[in-house]
Amino acid sequence: MNQPQTDRHYLQLALALAARATIETSPNPKVGCVIVTDGQILGQGWTQPVGQAHAEVMALRDAHAQGHVVAGATAYVTLEPCSHFGRTPPCANALVEAGIARVVAAVGDANPQVAGRGLAILRQAGLQVECGQEPDIALAAREMNVGFFRRMESGKPWVRMKMAASLDGHTALPNGQSQWITSPAARLDGHQWRARADAILTGIGTVLADDPQLNVRGISTPRQPIKIIVDSHLRIAPQARCLQQGVSLVVAAHDDAEKRAALEAQGVEVLLLPAAHGRVDLSALLLELGRRQINELHVEAGAVLNGALLEAKLVDELLVYLAPKLLGSGAGLLHISELTHVDQAESWQYHDVQMLAPDLRILARRNLA
Amino acid sequence: MNQPQTDRHYLQLALALAARATIETSPNPKVGCVIVTDGQILGQGWTQPVGQAHAEVMALRDAHAQGHVVAGATAYVTLEPCSHFGRTPPCANALVEAGIARVVAAVGDANPQVAGRGLAILRQAGLQVECGQEPDIALAAREMNVGFFRRMESGKPWVRMKMAASLDGHTALPNGQSQWITSPAARLDGHQWRARADAILTGIGTVLADDPQLNVRGISTPRQPIKIIVDSHLRIAPQARCLQQGVSLVVAAHDDAEKRAALEAQGVEVLLLPAAHGRVDLSALLLELGRRQINELHVEAGAVLNGALLEAKLVDELLVYLAPKLLGSGAGLLHISELTHVDQAESWQYHDVQMLAPDLRILARRNLA
Repeated sequence: MNQPQTDRHYLQLALALAARATIETSPNPKVGCVIVTDGQILGQGWTQPVGQAHAEVMALRDAHAQGHVVAGATAYVTLEPCSHFGRTPPCANALVEAGIARVVAAVGDANPQVAGRGLAILRQAGLQVECGQEPDIALAAREMNVGFFRRMESGKPWVRMKMAASLDGHTALPNGQSQWITSPAARLDGHQWRARADAILTGIGTVLADDPQLNVRGISTPRQPIKIIVDSHLRIAPQARCLQQGVSLVVAAHDDAEKRAALEAQGVEVLLLPAAHGRVDLSALLLELGRRQINELHVEAGAVLNGALLEAKLVDELLVYLAPKLLGSGAGLLHISELTHVDQAESWQYHDVQMLAPDLRILARRNLA
Repeated sequence: MNQPQTDRHYLQLALALAARATIETSPNPKVGCVIVTDGQILGQGWTQPVGQAHAEVMALRDAHAQGHVVAGATAYVTLEPCSHFGRTPPCANALVEAGIARVVAAVGDANPQVAGRGLAILRQAGLQVECGQEPDIALAAREMNVGFFRRMESGKPWVRMKMAASLDGHTALPNGQSQWITSPAARLDGHQWRARADAILTGIGTVLADDPQLNVRGISTPRQPIKIIVDSHLRIAPQARCLQQGVSLVVAAHDDAEKRAALEAQGVEVLLLPAAHGRVDLSALLLELGRRQINELHVEAGAVLNGALLEAKLVDELLVYLAPKLLGSGAGLLHISELTHVDQAESWQYHDVQMLAPDLRILARRNLA
């Protein structure tokens, strides 16, 4: 017989299990579950790739596979168990049917189809239920699914904007040269962030200037993100490298039947989302991406699209690589309307700062204070 | 009887003593000394304000005041004992006369009047001498006196350039507003760096635009740095705030007898250092400041002077405060000639990165690799 540990201990274990879920769980959240009786761990599980079993079902299966009796046990989960029939049956019901006596959840689900209903099902079935008792673990469980929570709460993906510049804020020299400002280590790290995103967004300016592939390279990934190109006037060439592989979506404000047909003929989806000013309606685009279950959107664009997204307050997080170089002049990070007072600038909050080989990596988030 | 410790232990203690020396020791280095026999600490000392006793003499006095016999003891010092008659007699001789049997120094002195001679005096007198055996302690002893070592090795002060900008590299809005970009905490930290410098350098552009006081405020300091204004055409007004208190030096490239007389009449020194191109010879200025025993020079200037110093490769360290704001457009950090390839940019190395309330403080040093 093992010495029983605190609820906090088992929730932390569940968090560690959740971290073993891969990006293939998306659009589902990464969740971990551990089933315990009298200090004995009966089963452990974490969310499987989308369409397969959730964490609770995996933990129940694990317990059964070992011949354990879970009736009367406590289930620790990093997220409120789901209550709706989606691709899989509701986990709340599975816990009830298995005879679980007590459920301790790190944080409530933000999914309007679940939000409290999962816990209600458990309580109605007579289970003892606790949720959100450990604020730091609740925060970590949310953080692990920042895109999922963002989408559930706003209908839009979590938007992370990646930028790379010299220490004095230049992304390119006056002659346009932009390569080799940041190091190979920073570029590889950038691909790690691309990999965890469900989609990568760029603008037609970047496509015409750099012809990027817009995929994950140099690291192993179980799937490639969708590529999205904002291209108001459908200027993209069907030969563009980003359209040659994977799933691509071109978003325009002005239709051009011929060009659209050419793109569609090679399997590229074209979406028309005009805004009043004749450009793409970026807010509508994000809502559409939310509807398509994009949790995390990785933006890697030029100063114009960056500026437009920032001015529309659609960016949740900045991912900035600063090289230890001073270039003096050259392209800036973003085009926005001239400010006349510093107070007009949106306030961000440094979230994480790390040295990355010679460069500095800065994560900043919208300042909600 | 105490348990004898390692040499490393006593050198670390000497380092901690050296850290108690104040900026008033300048232009002398901060040094610590501890005298030990058989694990018993007989005396401790650190450098006193300039003109007063050095660390070794203070430690000997401390031992004598306690009635200890130092004959046969070991002296641990963070820097090779001096060998020349300056404002005080040589410390090497003082150690010999006191009967010290062994001297362990963290690092050799870079002063051409000392360099090895202090150790030679000790060895010739029959003392056992070790120096630089602990590389990390040697580095820390140098680091504590970075300006002193720089001046001894190059004849010029250590030049630290302070800059404050938004995350996208703007020091002011297009309309010129530059206040409130960084936080009060960052500004106070800036004054800590001003305080440790022997002189503060700015350009006439900054004086005309901002009329700065160019002194240390908001923190206690035993002395104010000298103020140096680079002003090629002697455009400064005698009423400028930076000329009202303390010691000021105006450096010009073109003489103007009347203006010079007006400045000199109020106690401001005017130095003429013309370079071939009609501007101030910045390299000659730094050599002159070295001759005047300025160890650390704090630069707080505009983009023009910053750029000129950087292009002349006269800057040793960047001290950059980055506010978590994106301004989009406005003044840049430095004016330099347009680069045509990233390789032409000087390479720096991040030395220290810290969060400072909402802002980020970055120290970078010239990349010597």
